[in-house]
Amino acid sequence: MKMIDLNCDLGESFGAYKMGCDEEAIPLISSANIACGFHAGDPVVMAKTVKMAADAGIQIGAHPGFPDLMGFGRRNMAVTPAEAKAYVQYQVGALQAFAAANGMKLQHVKPHGNLYNMAGKDYALAKAICEAIASVSGDLIILALAGSEMIRAAEEVGIRAAQEVFADRAYEEDGALVARSKPGAMITDEDEAAKRVLRMVQEGKVTAITGKDISIKADSVCVHGDSPKTLAFIRKLREEMAANGISISPLTQIL
Amino acid sequence: MKMIDLNCDLGESFGAYKMGCDEEAIPLISSANIACGFHAGDPVVMAKTVKMAADAGIQIGAHPGFPDLMGFGRRNMAVTPAEAKAYVQYQVGALQAFAAANGMKLQHVKPHGNLYNMAGKDYALAKAICEAIASVSGDLIILALAGSEMIRAAEEVGIRAAQEVFADRAYEEDGALVARSKPGAMITDEDEAAKRVLRMVQEGKVTAITGKDISIKADSVCVHGDSPKTLAFIRKLREEMAANGISISPLTQIL
Amino acid sequence: MKMIDLNCDLGESFGAYKMGCDEEAIPLISSANIACGFHAGDPVVMAKTVKMAADAGIQIGAHPGFPDLMGFGRRNMAVTPAEAKAYVQYQVGALQAFAAANGMKLQHVKPHGNLYNMAGKDYALAKAICEAIASVSGDLIILALAGSEMIRAAEEVGIRAAQEVFADRAYEEDGALVARSKPGAMITDEDEAAKRVLRMVQEGKVTAITGKDISIKADSVCVHGDSPKTLAFIRKLREEMAANGISISPLTQIL
Amino acid sequence: MKMIDLNCDLGESFGAYKMGCDEEAIPLISSANIACGFHAGDPVVMAKTVKMAADAGIQIGAHPGFPDLMGFGRRNMAVTPAEAKAYVQYQVGALQAFAAANGMKLQHVKPHGNLYNMAGKDYALAKAICEAIASVSGDLIILALAGSEMIRAAEEVGIRAAQEVFADRAYEEDGALVARSKPGAMITDEDEAAKRVLRMVQEGKVTAITGKDISIKADSVCVHGDSPKTLAFIRKLREEMAANGISISPLTQIL
Repeated sequence: MKMIDLNCDLGESFGAYKMGCDEEAIPLISSANIACGFHAGDPVVMAKTVKMAADAGIQIGAHPGFPDLMGFGRRNMAVTPAEAKAYVQYQVGALQAFAAANGMKLQHVKPHGNLYNMAGKDYALAKAICEAIASVSGDLIILALAGSEMIRAAEEVGIRAAQEVFADRAYEEDGALVARSKPGAMITDEDEAAKRVLRMVQEGKVTAITGKDISIKADSVCVHGDSPKTLAFIRKLREEMAANGISISPLTQIL
Repeated sequence: MKMIDLNCDLGESFGAYKMGCDEEAIPLISSANIACGFHAGDPVVMAKTVKMAADAGIQIGAHPGFPDLMGFGRRNMAVTPAEAKAYVQYQVGALQAFAAANGMKLQHVKPHGNLYNMAGKDYALAKAICEAIASVSGDLIILALAGSEMIRAAEEVGIRAAQEVFADRAYEEDGALVARSKPGAMITDEDEAAKRVLRMVQEGKVTAITGKDISIKADSVCVHGDSPKTLAFIRKLREEMAANGISISPLTQIL
Repeated sequence: MKMIDLNCDLGESFGAYKMGCDEEAIPLISSANIACGFHAGDPVVMAKTVKMAADAGIQIGAHPGFPDLMGFGRRNMAVTPAEAKAYVQYQVGALQAFAAANGMKLQHVKPHGNLYNMAGKDYALAKAICEAIASVSGDLIILALAGSEMIRAAEEVGIRAAQEVFADRAYEEDGALVARSKPGAMITDEDEAAKRVLRMVQEGKVTAITGKDISIKADSVCVHGDSPKTLAFIRKLREEMAANGISISPLTQIL
Repeated sequence: MKMIDLNCDLGESFGAYKMGCDEEAIPLISSANIACGFHAGDPVVMAKTVKMAADAGIQIGAHPGFPDLMGFGRRNMAVTPAEAKAYVQYQVGALQAFAAANGMKLQHVKPHGNLYNMAGKDYALAKAICEAIASVSGDLIILALAGSEMIRAAEEVGIRAAQEVFADRAYEEDGALVARSKPGAMITDEDEAAKRVLRMVQEGKVTAITGKDISIKADSVCVHGDSPKTLAFIRKLREEMAANGISISPLTQIL
């Protein structure tokens, strides 16, 4: 049976600031990426989010980002590989404590925002992140952009990698995401988005923005839980998968 | 054979800011309390400090503090027990990652600064901290003021507690430290300080500021590694212990 | 003609985090207290908020808080008077820059959250805050709890003070707010709340929780702009004032 | 009479962390660049530093940096021009408060670290910074790398610019600093460094790393006050200037 993981960023609230629809999203996904206090999240939020995930029986992973709460981790920062390694170790460890407190183990690590983007293209940065993960636990899976430098680094470092695809983003011929600033970067038609995911899972193919079909490996689809609209899309995606005999399963079952 | 642990706060540098004489202090102590990024320390400093401790073969523990870098964790903050619990879990977990990366396990947790002081007197806060520690790992020892609420909470929560004494501080009759603002609060004569520690270890007694002898349990002595002068005192203390057949040993051997 | 100022906390968003209904609240108030980046707000938010206030023609003031974004400035912190003074100077100055960029001057300073609460009862802290304000500009008005230590300190330091009252809070006989944890602390009936404000403005009296009438000076009423419900209350309050010939006017006209 | 300004970064301590030799440096310089709390400095440090400068009678300026205390503002951050503008307004305003409290006015603004470096090459960023300065006060001088985009932006925005040169750095033929990673980037011979500054002031010329003489305008020399060695170099530089009839004068007298 074909399987796909649905992953979603959770635990992005901070102090008095609320963000996301965590309660609504959790029953719809198989893997939660939980913010670890650098770009979002705080210890109280992490404790609450991990408990919710534990109660719902979904898998959790760390979602480490740049130390830039003001920029929500969405700005490039010129950190060295040694800095990136330490930042990831720190954040993964912090989340592990809450997992342990709930009798859980972390399933995966997915870098956040521009740490994800930069490491997808910068092998030295990607390798530092993979080494960080390996150093904390050899069981952890890295969840990263399909076909990116992160996947290549994971192989070299010797940790398992799950390849992530995006339902709402167009792809270049080389498998990179089309920059948001370019026309056609976003797939706004939800039916088309769901169909694209289906084909990625069933055939391992997606049509690039140039019109050419490219190969893509889809272990997990990134979904967003920040509004009623995006929650509706997750439901649609689940129905499309169910209708085609594809099960929603966490990464541990897929890899 | 009588034993005593010497513990010292390490890893208090932050970014471009240097603090302490970690390289010089490490060979002189048996247990290092490592700052975890809230009141001091950052991931790069933590990585470096844990590696130094691993290379030197000394035991390490987490030194969690209030989220107040500007105040170095030395100001009272009215955190709730739930907040304190999550802050301690987070910081202990973060340090565990660096321990794992060096093939080590944390030996202990010692709250820092005013979190230590407040929890020593506030049972609800003390209990929240002990629960945090227990939730992350039942093997962790709490290192806290001898005779304080922290020791009492550790018993109730069911984690091992090591009792800490101070060479350079005077005691009240009830075992509390004399407030620094009071005359006689600091023991400035190093010979007297060393003798007081010796008696605490050998007899379980110390003379309170009132002149009355009180009972005290001394598992570990807090020493400071922030200047050549304080390093010289650690050496003197080691000599005094050695001359009296007392070994310097980590908490894991003492408890 | 009787006058009353309506003040509201604005600019509490931070980075990607949104808080409050600033656009909706601005047309309904006469004075805005703008967060300055310590407990809430960031430079981009401040720039935007000051511009909105300038466009709407309302007066603005600084809303300095503790350096505790995680706690939203709502936790007691044991800062020294010298620290409090510097924190207030810093935050007032930061907001002044945005005022200058919009051709405005700050009207007032209202301490936020637990800095407000602590300074209302602690004369040394209150005096440090007033000295901070006076040192930056002798024209600034402090907005503080009616009858509190802040008002007393302002007199001694020689700056103008505006006395703030609360529509939704019960008062003790000594003019203190009834602690939120006590029964009856909150006035939940909006009609009653509006009537209480009216009487404070017209007669300078309010009925304390004990049933006894006490004197109170009401220069400004604190209103909240964080939800449609609270915005509706502001509208009701404005109608009640208008119906009784009381104008809504900024502090500069009242003092 | 020829004049040159000596500028030095001051007030870089933070909380319990000490950095620099501010007391020793102040009597040797004419302009102080004071950190404003983003990459270094805190309100208490700023208050103290401005008071020292006021007592010594030297001019002060704001030294705004990226919001990156962990990286000391020395890492590239991809901030937008709008963000940079707001960050500079905020930090300049914050320092103005301490200047006002000491009866002073700010003389200048010098961006710090990688904000300085990035803006020296990125016209949009440079312009945003100059607009920020102009919006707060038209009297402020920007102090920036001689011949950089910052100087060009200042002209367009209409604020005065002071051109900064470096005694210890080699120059490319286009006036850029030779990257520190390249051989020959640093001028380590202090006599040569002093002679180079002398020639820049007297002739408006410096020999680039290629051996070719290039034109350079020297309004101010950047000096470092972080060690006894660097303080000794400032003294040497002062002697060299005095021996050649060049006065050390603040920017306000030079422009």
